[in-house]
Amino acid sequence: MRQAKEAIELSTDDEDLRFKLIQDILAYIGENFSKEMSSNATGSKIHQYIKKETGCYDPYKNEKREGNEIALSLLPKVRELIKDDDSLETYVKIAIVGNILDFGAYTLDTDIEALIFEGLSKELVINDIDKLEEDLKKYDKVLYLVDNTGEIVFDKLLLEKIKEYDVDITVAVKERPILNDACMEDAIEAGLDELATLISTGSDSVGVVESMISDEFKEILTSSPFIISKGMGNYEGITEMSFDKQDIFFLFCTKCPAISKDLGVDEGSHILSKY
Amino acid sequence: MRQAKEAIELSTDDEDLRFKLIQDILAYIGENFSKEMSSNATGSKIHQYIKKETGCYDPYKNEKREGNEIALSLLPKVRELIKDDDSLETYVKIAIVGNILDFGAYTLDTDIEALIFEGLSKELVINDIDKLEEDLKKYDKVLYLVDNTGEIVFDKLLLEKIKEYDVDITVAVKERPILNDACMEDAIEAGLDELATLISTGSDSVGVVESMISDEFKEILTSSPFIISKGMGNYEGITEMSFDKQDIFFLFCTKCPAISKDLGVDEGSHILSKY
Repeated sequence: MRQAKEAIELSTDDEDLRFKLIQDILAYIGENFSKEMSSNATGSKIHQYIKKETGCYDPYKNEKREGNEIALSLLPKVRELIKDDDSLETYVKIAIVGNILDFGAYTLDTDIEALIFEGLSKELVINDIDKLEEDLKKYDKVLYLVDNTGEIVFDKLLLEKIKEYDVDITVAVKERPILNDACMEDAIEAGLDELATLISTGSDSVGVVESMISDEFKEILTSSPFIISKGMGNYEGITEMSFDKQDIFFLFCTKCPAISKDLGVDEGSHILSKY
Repeated sequence: MRQAKEAIELSTDDEDLRFKLIQDILAYIGENFSKEMSSNATGSKIHQYIKKETGCYDPYKNEKREGNEIALSLLPKVRELIKDDDSLETYVKIAIVGNILDFGAYTLDTDIEALIFEGLSKELVINDIDKLEEDLKKYDKVLYLVDNTGEIVFDKLLLEKIKEYDVDITVAVKERPILNDACMEDAIEAGLDELATLISTGSDSVGVVESMISDEFKEILTSSPFIISKGMGNYEGITEMSFDKQDIFFLFCTKCPAISKDLGVDEGSHILSKY
C-alpha cells in the first residue's frame, strides 16, 4: 500500500483519480490477501493497474535519472574507498551497499560517503563468499539480475571484479519501467553495456514473476548454471520458482521483517547466500 | 493498517492469528473505504475487533506506563525551560509538544530536551491565542479533552496555567484502553486529578465518535460552552459532529497529509485553532 500510494502520487495530480485508485487497490488486496498470494505478482498487477489508469508509464523517471547521476558522481570516491581492500568480498559488499542507498532521497547535505562507509563496515550475516569465488573460477559465464537504478552503478564495480575471473556476464534488466528498477536505457546510462551483454526479463514485474517474464528469458533463467541475483524482489521471485542444479547467489539487504524472519536473520542484514 | 499491525503485534504472538486479523482488517477496509468513511469510527471498530479476537484489552499498557514515567521525569526540566516565558502561549506550545513526542520510542540516548526545545521554538501556524485568552477570562469552566498518555503530563502544565484564570477544569479521558490514549488511571498517575474533575467519554473510540460515546458524555460535550480539544483524533471527531454556539479550541500537530491539506497548512504544523 505504501508503494502503491507513492506510485499513484508520482503518476497523477488528479485527487479524485488518486482516491479511486487507492479504493480499488484496497478492495483488490482486501479480497485477495492470503498466505498463497505472491507479493511480487500482486505488486506487479497493482503497478500495472496504476499505469493503465493514470496513463503514466514511468512515474519514477526523474528519480531513476537522479539515482544514476548521483551514483555515477560517487563512483570515484567509492573506488578510492575500497582500493586498499580489493577482495571479491569488498565488491560484493559494495554491491549490497548500492541496494540499501536510496539515491532519490538524498540532498546536497547528505553525507553519502559516511553512509557508504557504514554500509561497507557491516559484516555479511550470511556469507557464501568462498562458494561464490569457487563458481567464478568454475564457470565461464554468469547471469546477473539487477535491481534498482542508481544501485546498478555499484553493481558495475562488482561486474568489473567478476571480469577478472574471465567470466562472461549477461545482465538482465526490466523490459518496461516498474518502480525505480533498472531498464535497458538505465543500464546503458550506468555503462553496464561496457562489461556485459544486456538482456531483458521481458516484463515490468516486481522482481521476477514466472508467469510474467518472457519465454525467452525464462529459458535463459532456468538454464543458466550460474546466477547472481540482486535485491529482495528477485530473491522472492526466484525462491517461488523451481530450479534444478543451478548455482544461484542472492545479494541483498533484508529490508522487511518477513524475509528476515524467513532467513533467520535480523532486519537490515547484508546477505550473500547460495540458494 | 500501520496502527492495526502495531496493535496486533502488541496483542498476540500467535502468527496464525496475526495473519488472520490482518486478512480480516484488509477485507473490511477494502470493502468499506470511501470518502464518507469516518476514520475515527473505522479505527475504533478495528481496534475493538483486535481486542475481541486476541483477548488483549490493553496492548499499549507498558508503553503507556513508560510514557507517563518518562514525561513525569522530564517535568522539572520542562518547567525550567519555560520559566523565563510563562505566557499562556508558551503553555499552549508545551501542550502541543506533548502531542508530538512519542515517549514510548525513546531510549536513554535520546536527547529529549533538545526535541522539546525544538518543538517549543516552532511558531503556531494557526494561532488563536487571543481568542483563547479572551475565553479563559470570560468563562468559569472548561471541558478539556485529552489525547495520549505521556502527553497528559505536558497538558498538566497548561492546566496549571488555566487555573490562574480561575477556571474550573473538567478533563475527559477514555473509558477503556485504545492505542496509548489516556484512561482514568493514566490521568491519575499523571496527577491531573489534582487540577481537574476527571470524567470519561464512556467509550474506547479513537478520538470522539458520536455514536460510541456515552449519552452522559455527549450531553456534557454538546452543552459545554468552552472546550479545549487535544490531538488529531479529537479534532477529526468533533469536526464530524454538529456544534452550536460553543467555543471550541483545537490544540494539535498536523501529523497527516489529509488534515494538513484540509487546514491549508504544512504537515507537522502546530495549531491552536478556534473552531
